[in-house]
Amino acid sequence: MNSFGRLFRLAIFGESHGDVIGVVIDGCPPGIPFSENDMMSDLERRKSGAKGTTARKESDMPEIVSGVFNGFTTGAPVCILFRNENIKSSDYSFIKETPRPGHADFVADKKYNGYNDFRGGGHFSGRLTLALVSAGVLAKKIIAPVNINSEIIEIGGLKDFESVIENAVNQGDSVGGIIECRAENMPVGLGEPFFDSVESLISHLVFSIPAIKGIEFGLGFESSRKSGSEVNDAIIDANGKCATNNSGGINGGISNGNDLVFRVAVKPASSITKTQTTINISSGKAEELSVTGRHDACIALRIPPVLEAVTAIAIADLMLISKSFT
Amino acid sequence: MNSFGRLFRLAIFGESHGDVIGVVIDGCPPGIPFSENDMMSDLERRKSGAKGTTARKESDMPEIVSGVFNGFTTGAPVCILFRNENIKSSDYSFIKETPRPGHADFVADKKYNGYNDFRGGGHFSGRLTLALVSAGVLAKKIIAPVNINSEIIEIGGLKDFESVIENAVNQGDSVGGIIECRAENMPVGLGEPFFDSVESLISHLVFSIPAIKGIEFGLGFESSRKSGSEVNDAIIDANGKCATNNSGGINGGISNGNDLVFRVAVKPASSITKTQTTINISSGKAEELSVTGRHDACIALRIPPVLEAVTAIAIADLMLISKSFT
Amino acid sequence: MNSFGRLFRLAIFGESHGDVIGVVIDGCPPGIPFSENDMMSDLERRKSGAKGTTARKESDMPEIVSGVFNGFTTGAPVCILFRNENIKSSDYSFIKETPRPGHADFVADKKYNGYNDFRGGGHFSGRLTLALVSAGVLAKKIIAPVNINSEIIEIGGLKDFESVIENAVNQGDSVGGIIECRAENMPVGLGEPFFDSVESLISHLVFSIPAIKGIEFGLGFESSRKSGSEVNDAIIDANGKCATNNSGGINGGISNGNDLVFRVAVKPASSITKTQTTINISSGKAEELSVTGRHDACIALRIPPVLEAVTAIAIADLMLISKSFT
Amino acid sequence: MNSFGRLFRLAIFGESHGDVIGVVIDGCPPGIPFSENDMMSDLERRKSGAKGTTARKESDMPEIVSGVFNGFTTGAPVCILFRNENIKSSDYSFIKETPRPGHADFVADKKYNGYNDFRGGGHFSGRLTLALVSAGVLAKKIIAPVNINSEIIEIGGLKDFESVIENAVNQGDSVGGIIECRAENMPVGLGEPFFDSVESLISHLVFSIPAIKGIEFGLGFESSRKSGSEVNDAIIDANGKCATNNSGGINGGISNGNDLVFRVAVKPASSITKTQTTINISSGKAEELSVTGRHDACIALRIPPVLEAVTAIAIADLMLISKSFT
Repeated sequence: MNSFGRLFRLAIFGESHGDVIGVVIDGCPPGIPFSENDMMSDLERRKSGAKGTTARKESDMPEIVSGVFNGFTTGAPVCILFRNENIKSSDYSFIKETPRPGHADFVADKKYNGYNDFRGGGHFSGRLTLALVSAGVLAKKIIAPVNINSEIIEIGGLKDFESVIENAVNQGDSVGGIIECRAENMPVGLGEPFFDSVESLISHLVFSIPAIKGIEFGLGFESSRKSGSEVNDAIIDANGKCATNNSGGINGGISNGNDLVFRVAVKPASSITKTQTTINISSGKAEELSVTGRHDACIALRIPPVLEAVTAIAIADLMLISKSFT
Repeated sequence: MNSFGRLFRLAIFGESHGDVIGVVIDGCPPGIPFSENDMMSDLERRKSGAKGTTARKESDMPEIVSGVFNGFTTGAPVCILFRNENIKSSDYSFIKETPRPGHADFVADKKYNGYNDFRGGGHFSGRLTLALVSAGVLAKKIIAPVNINSEIIEIGGLKDFESVIENAVNQGDSVGGIIECRAENMPVGLGEPFFDSVESLISHLVFSIPAIKGIEFGLGFESSRKSGSEVNDAIIDANGKCATNNSGGINGGISNGNDLVFRVAVKPASSITKTQTTINISSGKAEELSVTGRHDACIALRIPPVLEAVTAIAIADLMLISKSFT
Repeated sequence: MNSFGRLFRLAIFGESHGDVIGVVIDGCPPGIPFSENDMMSDLERRKSGAKGTTARKESDMPEIVSGVFNGFTTGAPVCILFRNENIKSSDYSFIKETPRPGHADFVADKKYNGYNDFRGGGHFSGRLTLALVSAGVLAKKIIAPVNINSEIIEIGGLKDFESVIENAVNQGDSVGGIIECRAENMPVGLGEPFFDSVESLISHLVFSIPAIKGIEFGLGFESSRKSGSEVNDAIIDANGKCATNNSGGINGGISNGNDLVFRVAVKPASSITKTQTTINISSGKAEELSVTGRHDACIALRIPPVLEAVTAIAIADLMLISKSFT
Repeated sequence: MNSFGRLFRLAIFGESHGDVIGVVIDGCPPGIPFSENDMMSDLERRKSGAKGTTARKESDMPEIVSGVFNGFTTGAPVCILFRNENIKSSDYSFIKETPRPGHADFVADKKYNGYNDFRGGGHFSGRLTLALVSAGVLAKKIIAPVNINSEIIEIGGLKDFESVIENAVNQGDSVGGIIECRAENMPVGLGEPFFDSVESLISHLVFSIPAIKGIEFGLGFESSRKSGSEVNDAIIDANGKCATNNSGGINGGISNGNDLVFRVAVKPASSITKTQTTINISSGKAEELSVTGRHDACIALRIPPVLEAVTAIAIADLMLISKSFT
């Protein structure tokens, strides 16, 4: 299903080479100042342009077409549209015959009985994250003063990663990375023990972002290698502040008032010009494939604002829900 | 919220030291043979008993009280109850004053304005996983021939981990671990691109299991350190079989017919007899705390059947949903 | 699906002649005083006993088995169980062969491929309303000072209806009725224009009550026969109080602060001793049927507390949701 | 919330005088032929034009902007947009000061703290039914060979109603009506006993249509005045065909294979030029109000295709869900 949330709800739609990408945001409280301009900064951060990102240039201009009146949200559903431009669908005509390794081409063809819009990945395209980023801008306003920041901490296994990207570009290959996301000024008490823990909702949304293959909160995998006496965070004041933050700000699925911290693993982009092997669906024979066209060598570079957006969306929903207990 | 699923739906309830732990399973198709006996094997695997697990012994006898007639599911909601026994609530009376580091004591007190049942962790207790395991038994029947297995691959950072557990027990400390889960005979096409990817649903449920702090699919975090040409799985036949399985059986959020593979990080249990520092809520002063009573030194030992259960539950829901496209 | 609600959520389960009838209530705020005693008055009103109600006597004793601690709700799911007693399943053995006209026997057999628990109507039984009434008691506490009352206004088409019931009993027949429900002290602003209008949620729940075949709000069907100038309610103060209440307290799906008023049509009970015609499923031939055993000649007599309960449940959910806009 | 459905899901958005009215339809199976042309017939039936309908003329041209590729649904969300035209917002500037009796003006102002888009009723406008009608066209294709028809059976209390409409127009007043909806070729077994009965889902959607104040299935309110022996439908063949159809094709909330039949009460339109009394919100004093501008004297005339649409939507969802039991 292409919707998410209990009170702050999203429904997203659109295809990479279709008319629009869009999102409907329901349950947004009235009276929040909101305009297209508010989205430009996060949309800009998501854009291609840096070395290692695609040459497909989109103006990515959002249009708010409902739910905002005189500059404020009305309480009715907010719909935001992005018109697709600069489309070269001919680039993708081979997908039906020779599905790209690592991509959704094969599974989409099977799942939708061949009716899927395969151009540019269709509904599976990373362009759908435009919808997430724009909804995230509204979510960030709702959750203030909670403040969310994402940071790339590793590309291709390195902290200093300029050269590894350049190498990948030069070899027609791609490279992954790790991004850390942190939310400050978190209240105590968001989340539900079963099944809507803070980790559950964030990971649910995070794994909707194409190319994410892992997530860990606080110490994460490292905590599995330590003892309880090392991992437990000593509580040092009556507000729940802890001496350390190995839990990543979550106990028992509930926010504890310390910073929410998690990291995600971004795999290298699947589209590479370097030759790969796939199957020709018609002939049933192996075939060499080089994915030409415009693509990102390092998709991780574009993910930080998307990660912030989905985190804000999860927190916004939990915050609105938490009001029902007051 | 304490419910999950779209068609195969769970609602769980109960507290560690209350009358019962239970689960209501809605949307289960009629005609599935189901009895209390069917649950005993997975419940037995979840039980304490091994070195490193708690001395609290429960018979953990499930009672099916609705939705089964003449040995078969009826299509009406299935309710399974577990009566709590062998309860020593006096063990936990300190929790209100001095919340245990790493536990939900502090956040539960705040979230529920002090009304939470704090005895034994209440609704946050690991005993709630009884509900998950029993529901998982029904889910496993629905998804056959999909076959799920979990395996502990690391405890305290070691592949050979007997001594590390013994050490933890001796020192009144605890230790975490990593568990791998694998589902064989997966069909192609389960999952939705936004927002119900296979990874999204599984991680949503997995992070409801107490003590899980990370999850990775296929190569996971390791894939962020490799190039696309190394990570992409070459497709080698028309059914989508791949030469490697770095994706963990999922592309674009959709199952690709290869084995579903993921790993989770289990943190060391929070309850330890080793002395820790916490705050005394009344006095506002730091206090030393040694959590006595019966607890698990290595909670990871008991999690494999729980992990299989939630995986089966997610797959069951996706399988029932996928029928709507046929 | 056997669940309802967005924040104040119910899942119900059980069969007429199974072990239990039960309900899980999720999303109930902590700190509400709640005990078995609180439910006795509404459960008593729902009971049989009056002329025209079944001779099946049940003690209908509720057990709260989770979510309440020291006399207050904890914020965790509340589960309430009713053990079934005084069961005579042999009364119902004919159902598989000769489905009772007006009952769910035929459709249940088809829907569940013959696996349904047909004894006493199984999961379709009016006994399931025990779950609704008990959940309604909790809902009524949440929505205070909103106050809900139901009243029988017509039985068998008559305002004075004692004799019509007696006649039905004497003839082995049954009779229906009309019940009016009114909620006082309603706040302004509950409900959503699309799709969760006050009317939508109440009717959704009301049509879950067996035997309800119609609902109308305010003037209802009568308003279709009048002009706008007669039907429009003049607003007479700044709180929205109206000179008349033809709208039944709802405009555009939203509560307007005047009393919420609606009426429901209850059909005559389907089980009658008077001879009817049905089909014998095995032989495919018509067969005469007289439904012996214990049943209600006028089910409408027992519905007022059920109607109040579902109204309270709908309002409780909308009230908790409305807090997200504050 | 502005979404509905479990598998076949709608989210609607837009305001009467905003940029667009739209709908996102999720869960639509792939491979259904669908184009803008397919919608024209039902949209035409919904249009104004007849005596008694508004003079506001809209071309009501739908644009499918996602989810359809090469003329077929893809399985991804289908978004349909309607651009608003011919807007005269100045007509509605008085609404903030003097809320129209019978309208949502007052409740919307309170619910949304004054931030609602009040122009032309904003999100409460009957124009939102464009979204329902267009989604219904897709639903009708999914449910074939189920065939749905709506018919006006009464206007202003009369079967022959031309003059009553003319009178209302002449007097600057409005008039209501009753519409019957019938679905033929229904399968046995749609619906759930608790809480998603066929009546529950249809009434939930029906009461989202502005101006509906009552609904009854089969004999409806009339059945409350009859005996069980008169109301019970004798089953006459092994497919469940009945001699009569007093149940309206539903037993125990489940479709029984006979025609689904229900009627709705449409109140007279609230906007009338005839003088009414309301309150001036600023002065707190009573004020005379004549709603000038373009409006429908008999909104019931435009509702038949809307009623068919929501019925098709409910049935489509139930049909897709029912596949999970096969």
